[in-house]
Amino acid sequence: MAPKQIRTIGQVSQYVCLLSKPVSPVSGQVRQFTSPVDASIPASKQKFVPSSGTYPKGFKVSGSHAGVKASNTSAPDLALVWSEEPCSAAAVFTTNKFQAAPVQVSSELIRKRNGNGIRGVIVNAGCANAVTGKKGLQDARSMSKKADECNGLKEEDSSTLVMSTGVIGQLLPIERILNKVPEAQSNLASTHAAWLRTARAICTTDTFPKLTSRSFSLPSSPDRTYSIAGMTKGAGMIHPNMATLLGIICTDAPIEAPVLQSLLSHSISRSFNSISVDGDTSTNDTVAILANGAAGGTPISSTGSKDYTAMQSILTQFTQSLAQLVVRDGEGATKFVTVRVKNSPSYTDAKCIASTIARSPLVKTALYGKDANWGRILCAVGYTPDLTPGTVVPERTSVSFKPADGSAELKLLVNGEPESVDEGRASSILQHEDLEIVVDLGGGASGEAGRGGEDAIYWFCDFSHEYVTINGDYRT
Amino acid sequence: MAPKQIRTIGQVSQYVCLLSKPVSPVSGQVRQFTSPVDASIPASKQKFVPSSGTYPKGFKVSGSHAGVKASNTSAPDLALVWSEEPCSAAAVFTTNKFQAAPVQVSSELIRKRNGNGIRGVIVNAGCANAVTGKKGLQDARSMSKKADECNGLKEEDSSTLVMSTGVIGQLLPIERILNKVPEAQSNLASTHAAWLRTARAICTTDTFPKLTSRSFSLPSSPDRTYSIAGMTKGAGMIHPNMATLLGIICTDAPIEAPVLQSLLSHSISRSFNSISVDGDTSTNDTVAILANGAAGGTPISSTGSKDYTAMQSILTQFTQSLAQLVVRDGEGATKFVTVRVKNSPSYTDAKCIASTIARSPLVKTALYGKDANWGRILCAVGYTPDLTPGTVVPERTSVSFKPADGSAELKLLVNGEPESVDEGRASSILQHEDLEIVVDLGGGASGEAGRGGEDAIYWFCDFSHEYVTINGDYRT
Repeated sequence: MAPKQIRTIGQVSQYVCLLSKPVSPVSGQVRQFTSPVDASIPASKQKFVPSSGTYPKGFKVSGSHAGVKASNTSAPDLALVWSEEPCSAAAVFTTNKFQAAPVQVSSELIRKRNGNGIRGVIVNAGCANAVTGKKGLQDARSMSKKADECNGLKEEDSSTLVMSTGVIGQLLPIERILNKVPEAQSNLASTHAAWLRTARAICTTDTFPKLTSRSFSLPSSPDRTYSIAGMTKGAGMIHPNMATLLGIICTDAPIEAPVLQSLLSHSISRSFNSISVDGDTSTNDTVAILANGAAGGTPISSTGSKDYTAMQSILTQFTQSLAQLVVRDGEGATKFVTVRVKNSPSYTDAKCIASTIARSPLVKTALYGKDANWGRILCAVGYTPDLTPGTVVPERTSVSFKPADGSAELKLLVNGEPESVDEGRASSILQHEDLEIVVDLGGGASGEAGRGGEDAIYWFCDFSHEYVTINGDYRT
Repeated sequence: MAPKQIRTIGQVSQYVCLLSKPVSPVSGQVRQFTSPVDASIPASKQKFVPSSGTYPKGFKVSGSHAGVKASNTSAPDLALVWSEEPCSAAAVFTTNKFQAAPVQVSSELIRKRNGNGIRGVIVNAGCANAVTGKKGLQDARSMSKKADECNGLKEEDSSTLVMSTGVIGQLLPIERILNKVPEAQSNLASTHAAWLRTARAICTTDTFPKLTSRSFSLPSSPDRTYSIAGMTKGAGMIHPNMATLLGIICTDAPIEAPVLQSLLSHSISRSFNSISVDGDTSTNDTVAILANGAAGGTPISSTGSKDYTAMQSILTQFTQSLAQLVVRDGEGATKFVTVRVKNSPSYTDAKCIASTIARSPLVKTALYGKDANWGRILCAVGYTPDLTPGTVVPERTSVSFKPADGSAELKLLVNGEPESVDEGRASSILQHEDLEIVVDLGGGASGEAGRGGEDAIYWFCDFSHEYVTINGDYRT
């Protein structure tokens, strides 16, 4: 059955027509099966779309219409990111055992080239090229080669990474894509409009394009201005099997390849791997970073340098801001929740607890219902698997809500003892879109009581009626 | 805010009144905050409530009204199970680190007595006695002692196990409970009506009492008839923190304590630990078995005997039938799904994959939407954590639906290649309440391709609008 092209949730007219069917009247979100155009960005999401940016030197980008899905007659669905000079590159890929063809091709390419000499990334939306066998691999390679060719390169090894997102189990309309690569190449530009259109071209069911950029300096040359820009997509699965999380980050800072991989892995652990929309991991998930050094300065070549430490902090913050955009666009999400687990013997344990809270359907539905249900949070802490013994000690565990308006924390549980909660205050805290849950394990690095342990942060959204509607009902 | 006593979902009048709020019009389920009475059992669930049973000799049971929640003026909420003779006993308890007081008291009791000389179980619904500190422990012990006393026992160590289910973080109204234990003792009976009322007394938000029984024989005395009966409760969390799964199993077969623990642990792994309603694990989960030997015969004393092997199979099937009742009563559930993972190198790996599928919100919402979305199932297989390397090989993985009407399997994926699916047939298969998903890993015990590996089965239900309504909306 062909999916509908545009789906609007919550129009009263539709709602009334379908009284006999389970339809959720949650208002506000508009989801399409192709990337959004300006007019369709929900009012509540427009604040997350930048109107200008600071883009890295030497990169050009384009978002073009290839019509990967025959039904897509105008929205951009072919993205090209290109560097004038060869880049260091690093990437993290899905851990799913059913790796899509573009994942296999890109990881092979980075490995063969030791992360050097990468020139760009080509991405299509609308078809994931996953579970597509040998033909799928061939198609992914041909996209990469074609991008090289159109940019005048004829090396034996490609220098273009490839990503795909969309339906699983279908072959790419490869001729249609290859025929459009010359246009994608000629569309390359470095304007804000070009970056935004490129960010749009990688979207599937996202309700808004996710793009961010910033400038920074490094300790070794404090007067030099570097830039970093990134785009991402991902919003759970509205279309069957369309859950892919993609990210492309470009910087004009000079960073050598092995160091770049180390920087990316650290930052992804604390950003894209610290968010949860629905806990599923797709066959295509990929985040790649390209560093072309076009802004000059001394290359970062060692993990021991001051520049490395500074860059680690910058990149972690940057990828966190990108990853948070994915949570902001979680399917059916009405809440943006930060969970902070403090004073754990280790970061790994703290993150594991935060992740368990973030994935608990009972916690997620309670938040949707604006219910200050600390029992469910505590339960999730208690059943977190595989913790180092002694991490969770009921008698020193505390839970509180940190309100989005900056007012004092609302204590729910202190050292294992339930507080008498002011329900009125709890309710008003939960009216805000944003909320922070703080779980204090009351331990330290030694596992003993006392301060000084490790913290982890995780971001997630709630489970709403609309999530069920989007993921369950759209074909009925 | 006091919870409403009775909640009806989906009345059209309510629905129309609340057009401006997110209300799900799914029909059918009635949930109360106290245990159900006959009149309230939904028509669709009545087939799961037995009208007669085969109960083990020497056991008497009662369900009485104690009014643990002040608002409960008539429903039974105090259960007593008693054996005329001392029993061997075994139990499995929650792995949650925030263990409730009754869990601590019962596990301590079984340990101290090495599983011997246990006489009964006392259970209250309405308050979980969890996160209640020293007073909570004292209260749990006093319930156990009082049951002993009322049955004429004055040993120093109690011989009664204790269980509680209900709200977390509140102390028991202990005087009200203790004052009712004499009545509970005088109500003890061995009739079907008494067993059913006892099964009702342990319910919280369950829509029907969960009771089953059967007779069996053992190889060593084929002409002797043994009986086994069990009751359980559990239905996700409708009331805050009321998610507890309890189970009490009684048999008149003679089984020595260490062997009984081994039998129970094996069967629970394949039954209560192979179901998922929402993936959360409560602070109070407990399943206990009492064996009083009242039907005579040679005690099962070794794990190597034929009787042991027979009993293992009987108990596993029996606990599976009990556990399936919990899934049948999953909050908002419209589907009962069996997932069978075949031809895995190990049972543990197969179960881990089955569990990952059963917990995937995307799989669960697709089933609710009657969507034959094999991509989501495959994704879950692919991201199952901690598998033995080589367990999942994309090229030999197959997925199919086994229809509830006994017709041929519908193949969705064969050896990693997507099938061209007859959507009409898929849709008609998904109209049934019951469905089996078969994932064939195509491996063997050696990890090599070929048949002969291990299988695991898991049971779960779907995620519906009503699940979100029950768990998110009830206080708004």
